[in-house]
Amino acid sequence: MRAVTYAGDGAVRVAPVPDPRIEHPTDAVVEVRRSAVCGTDLHLLAHDEGLPAGTVLGHEFVGQVVETGTAVRGHRVGDLVVGADFVACGTCWWCRRGDHWECAERRFFGTGTAFGPPLAGTQAELVRVPHADTVLRTVPDGVSLDAAVFLGDTLATGYAAVRRADLQPGDTVAVVGGGPVGQLTALAAQACGAGAVLLVEPVGSRRAVAGREGSVAVAPEEAVTAAHGLTDGRGADVVVDAIGGPRGLGAAFELVRRRGTVVSVGVHDGTWDLPAGRAFADELTLRFAIGDLMRDGDRLLALVRCGAVDPTVLVEDRVSLTDAPDAYQRMSQRRTLKSLIVF
Amino acid sequence: MRAVTYAGDGAVRVAPVPDPRIEHPTDAVVEVRRSAVCGTDLHLLAHDEGLPAGTVLGHEFVGQVVETGTAVRGHRVGDLVVGADFVACGTCWWCRRGDHWECAERRFFGTGTAFGPPLAGTQAELVRVPHADTVLRTVPDGVSLDAAVFLGDTLATGYAAVRRADLQPGDTVAVVGGGPVGQLTALAAQACGAGAVLLVEPVGSRRAVAGREGSVAVAPEEAVTAAHGLTDGRGADVVVDAIGGPRGLGAAFELVRRRGTVVSVGVHDGTWDLPAGRAFADELTLRFAIGDLMRDGDRLLALVRCGAVDPTVLVEDRVSLTDAPDAYQRMSQRRTLKSLIVF
Amino acid sequence: MRAVTYAGDGAVRVAPVPDPRIEHPTDAVVEVRRSAVCGTDLHLLAHDEGLPAGTVLGHEFVGQVVETGTAVRGHRVGDLVVGADFVACGTCWWCRRGDHWECAERRFFGTGTAFGPPLAGTQAELVRVPHADTVLRTVPDGVSLDAAVFLGDTLATGYAAVRRADLQPGDTVAVVGGGPVGQLTALAAQACGAGAVLLVEPVGSRRAVAGREGSVAVAPEEAVTAAHGLTDGRGADVVVDAIGGPRGLGAAFELVRRRGTVVSVGVHDGTWDLPAGRAFADELTLRFAIGDLMRDGDRLLALVRCGAVDPTVLVEDRVSLTDAPDAYQRMSQRRTLKSLIVF
Amino acid sequence: MRAVTYAGDGAVRVAPVPDPRIEHPTDAVVEVRRSAVCGTDLHLLAHDEGLPAGTVLGHEFVGQVVETGTAVRGHRVGDLVVGADFVACGTCWWCRRGDHWECAERRFFGTGTAFGPPLAGTQAELVRVPHADTVLRTVPDGVSLDAAVFLGDTLATGYAAVRRADLQPGDTVAVVGGGPVGQLTALAAQACGAGAVLLVEPVGSRRAVAGREGSVAVAPEEAVTAAHGLTDGRGADVVVDAIGGPRGLGAAFELVRRRGTVVSVGVHDGTWDLPAGRAFADELTLRFAIGDLMRDGDRLLALVRCGAVDPTVLVEDRVSLTDAPDAYQRMSQRRTLKSLIVF
Repeated sequence: MRAVTYAGDGAVRVAPVPDPRIEHPTDAVVEVRRSAVCGTDLHLLAHDEGLPAGTVLGHEFVGQVVETGTAVRGHRVGDLVVGADFVACGTCWWCRRGDHWECAERRFFGTGTAFGPPLAGTQAELVRVPHADTVLRTVPDGVSLDAAVFLGDTLATGYAAVRRADLQPGDTVAVVGGGPVGQLTALAAQACGAGAVLLVEPVGSRRAVAGREGSVAVAPEEAVTAAHGLTDGRGADVVVDAIGGPRGLGAAFELVRRRGTVVSVGVHDGTWDLPAGRAFADELTLRFAIGDLMRDGDRLLALVRCGAVDPTVLVEDRVSLTDAPDAYQRMSQRRTLKSLIVF
Repeated sequence: MRAVTYAGDGAVRVAPVPDPRIEHPTDAVVEVRRSAVCGTDLHLLAHDEGLPAGTVLGHEFVGQVVETGTAVRGHRVGDLVVGADFVACGTCWWCRRGDHWECAERRFFGTGTAFGPPLAGTQAELVRVPHADTVLRTVPDGVSLDAAVFLGDTLATGYAAVRRADLQPGDTVAVVGGGPVGQLTALAAQACGAGAVLLVEPVGSRRAVAGREGSVAVAPEEAVTAAHGLTDGRGADVVVDAIGGPRGLGAAFELVRRRGTVVSVGVHDGTWDLPAGRAFADELTLRFAIGDLMRDGDRLLALVRCGAVDPTVLVEDRVSLTDAPDAYQRMSQRRTLKSLIVF
Repeated sequence: MRAVTYAGDGAVRVAPVPDPRIEHPTDAVVEVRRSAVCGTDLHLLAHDEGLPAGTVLGHEFVGQVVETGTAVRGHRVGDLVVGADFVACGTCWWCRRGDHWECAERRFFGTGTAFGPPLAGTQAELVRVPHADTVLRTVPDGVSLDAAVFLGDTLATGYAAVRRADLQPGDTVAVVGGGPVGQLTALAAQACGAGAVLLVEPVGSRRAVAGREGSVAVAPEEAVTAAHGLTDGRGADVVVDAIGGPRGLGAAFELVRRRGTVVSVGVHDGTWDLPAGRAFADELTLRFAIGDLMRDGDRLLALVRCGAVDPTVLVEDRVSLTDAPDAYQRMSQRRTLKSLIVF
Repeated sequence: MRAVTYAGDGAVRVAPVPDPRIEHPTDAVVEVRRSAVCGTDLHLLAHDEGLPAGTVLGHEFVGQVVETGTAVRGHRVGDLVVGADFVACGTCWWCRRGDHWECAERRFFGTGTAFGPPLAGTQAELVRVPHADTVLRTVPDGVSLDAAVFLGDTLATGYAAVRRADLQPGDTVAVVGGGPVGQLTALAAQACGAGAVLLVEPVGSRRAVAGREGSVAVAPEEAVTAAHGLTDGRGADVVVDAIGGPRGLGAAFELVRRRGTVVSVGVHDGTWDLPAGRAFADELTLRFAIGDLMRDGDRLLALVRCGAVDPTVLVEDRVSLTDAPDAYQRMSQRRTLKSLIVF
């Protein structure tokens, strides 16, 4: 089969690779119909860490089951399915709590060894899916392939942010960053009870998307004023950092009101100078969250199916597998919000 | 001043009555700008119980504070305010839990002695509001008078239903009854995370309103099929009975899935043949709920202010105080969903 | 092997039956070390319905894994395990929500066809456990066999009642019925934040157990006075019906305060005259609940391991498998609270 | 009257001061029966900031109402009451949410200007209590004066930690610090559903108290090993920092498991080097909490009344008002856990 693979030196190419096959009785093989290019892919290429040349890239996918192991019960050949971006066993102490990310058998599709032992990616004609009963969800009538492909990562992440914030009806939500995750965080918040949603983003075209989709979209330098204007001067009840790093957390803490909640879904490393004095006096909450289709997939499918959330607003670019390397380039130059690979 | 008063024999008229005045230091007097006619008013007239002739009717209102008692701290003369439909002390064991309905000092505006000791109603040029700090909320910029007037009862009730159901994101919600409360229950559910919302109503014009506002609206005989169609045959996760009586509960139990929740916001008396065998085997939940602006007003104002809920979709009829008796008639003939009295 | 089997005409006997063996790759076979006799067993015998002669009885068990199917990942031969009293697939829509009771593959150990397709019981030297990864939990150091055997049904049920009541710290809890489930409901409530716990029971020896274990134990005729005495006259915040039938629900509704919650874990059939008028005026909640080790096992093990709950207070009788029929008799005569079969 | 006052230079003395009197219609005056000396008092003396000489000290109290303003409804002369350690209006946006700490009218008893405008303290024969309906709770039969005095601060704080952690049944809780707050955090956790409770404290006599009261008490150097031993190597589900500062947060983060929660009830200023990389990878939660009798008093009284929590385990020292300065000294030398001033 053909797949997008890492060519070394930060480059990708489309190359032939061996077909995947069932290795365990709980595996399935899925013929991919849609995959997407994600900021995480670009981040890995840029850092060239833990990514052996030849790695099949990609971790978002929707497709059709073409083969199942003997112990797979919930899916049959021909089923249209969407997958989580990582796999987990489904039965251990962590998985039983819905904390699949902590499972000892976690494998992240298409990211080399960056997040643990490797698992071939999904920007490929076929993908092997371990623990298929846990990892895959059937795509019901009424959910398009273009929408479903976002459930495995981008929407799962935005939704995780909203849920982890314990969002209450009417809460004013500020989202720092208008990339794909920030945009879907805003939509998830709107669908799940938010009052006003403020999206903070320097790029005008991204603000335009958010504004069209119901958020108040402002540039970073206007964010504090806007947050105060929406909340009688208190600041946002909930702030989601969809950027990561000290910049994301710093911006979030500027916007959050006393006794409010900051959730970060951005990437962090090292340490950050938490303003502990203020956090104590204002009784703040800071949480970190990672998306998880295995935990939240049923609810996400219900929200998308009825139209409460439409993740396809992200799609500004559609390419064939052959042209996927071009999509990587457009994404890295921020010329497109999200590129979809259509098989 | 002038007010809508009970004329006996199920009739109402507009008549002069003495101006209300501050009786306790925690009272305020409000000049009414909008009131509305409610199904509860019609119900009381139809039964002619606990309603002495001369009673000033009405319990929904928005207006301007014109006088405050010496102990009122949160409101000043000139403030635009919306009131709850009943009053409570705000400091007892019940009120501290947000259960104002159980307060020993509960008084329900304009309903005679039907719900306890009487309190003059709000379909009047002026209304005295006991416990003003607890009962009134300031109407912020961005919330119209026409919208705010529904926060005291109709929207508070619909929202109470949704919250008491512990609605989770993506839940399919069925609402039995497309009267004013049913309509706003549907809107509150959509704003607070529902997946598909099904509204069951025999009157076509009411189904049309619900359909326009994003619900799947069906006639009662189609309800079970529709609920199953939306839920892969399981039934609705949450059902709200917005009719009351055995008919409402019976219809709700037909639509709810195993382990689902029925919330009733309709009126009941006597007993009902609960299907205990099924309720046990299917682990059902049955709850009753009453709206409460004092508990939920801040969240409701936030949802209305940002446009997540627009209660004015109910307004099919606007009358002056003088013409209020005509509005009563149109409401009782179901020729209008909701009549607004504009001062 | 030997097992307690149904002999017809309401009688049980110990008889030889074929050894169970692995039938599916997700099965395990467990050598039973403790089983117990349950009120459900007595109920089935008394009604002689859906119970073919020769049925292996019993649904509570703790033991050692002696064989595993090829797809079992979480358990190995030699592991000490406790099982749920019914089995479920672990991966379907219902199981993903923790609602294993609704799983299409539900099978209840040792109850014939009373709750669906049959599955041989656990009052036997060996038991086959379908879906072993989902159904079994490892018994950790610090939890005795005598304690662990109650996690599959009696304690799981008491705990389900408490959780389904959404018990809040300090809530006064009344438990109607001091049988095994009622007793462990009281202990679970105490461990999970209850204030005063009132146990209502006609049999003096059962009240003595509850009193010794920290509840206020009273006879039914004293229950209302006692509940009011503990709550400044309001009634209990939470009432658990651990009897079932109209009698259980009726007693529960007499004890519950306005805006309180009744949870029934007793058995019901047919209909019950719900006092709808009062339930509406007082905004009551009525819920039904069924225990589920698969959902709650990790938390139950943690509570038992640290001593917060000690289910062995129930054990008034220990018998060998040979003498199990005597234990059935003592249980049915209420001469013992709970009989343990020790292998 | 006589009161403990600040004498400057870190010293306290008992001195005559003018009797307080009703200043607003919502005030009450309480004759103090018990007050206590708190770590916060010692902290303020040690730093000598915001504490004018002559300040009446103390913020914990239980006593008898001797005078009420005309607008006080919930309390009468003669009532036995416990007060929160700070006051709030009870009706603003913050107070309506239960966030009294954020109220613009917050005044903290006996702490000079350290937390806002001053309010005379409670280590005095009489104390004026603003917003008496909001600030005071009636002490019911069955709650001793010695127990009730801890509800205003120490127990309210421990309970706030437990609630803010969203403690779930069976959670393993680690408490960093065995001072008064740490001790009552441990007791509150036990009462509210914790599994094992680990208390980490260098002072042997404080470990002895905790061990006697049901916690596993260890020295700091044994903490990680103990936490892992209780949790199959995962770390504590919930960790409460009852010390404050970088040391408290650092110790807490060493003990918390992946996806666990740290709540800090200690004092902080400046910044802290949050391990952001780990917090992200492990999806941690960090919250800050301040006790609040106004929000939690009803639940605390219920837990104390039934014996589920006994805060008097703290009392190692009882003094008269005259001898209060000695108690300050013993507390500052850590020769006693908590000193009670008995009037």
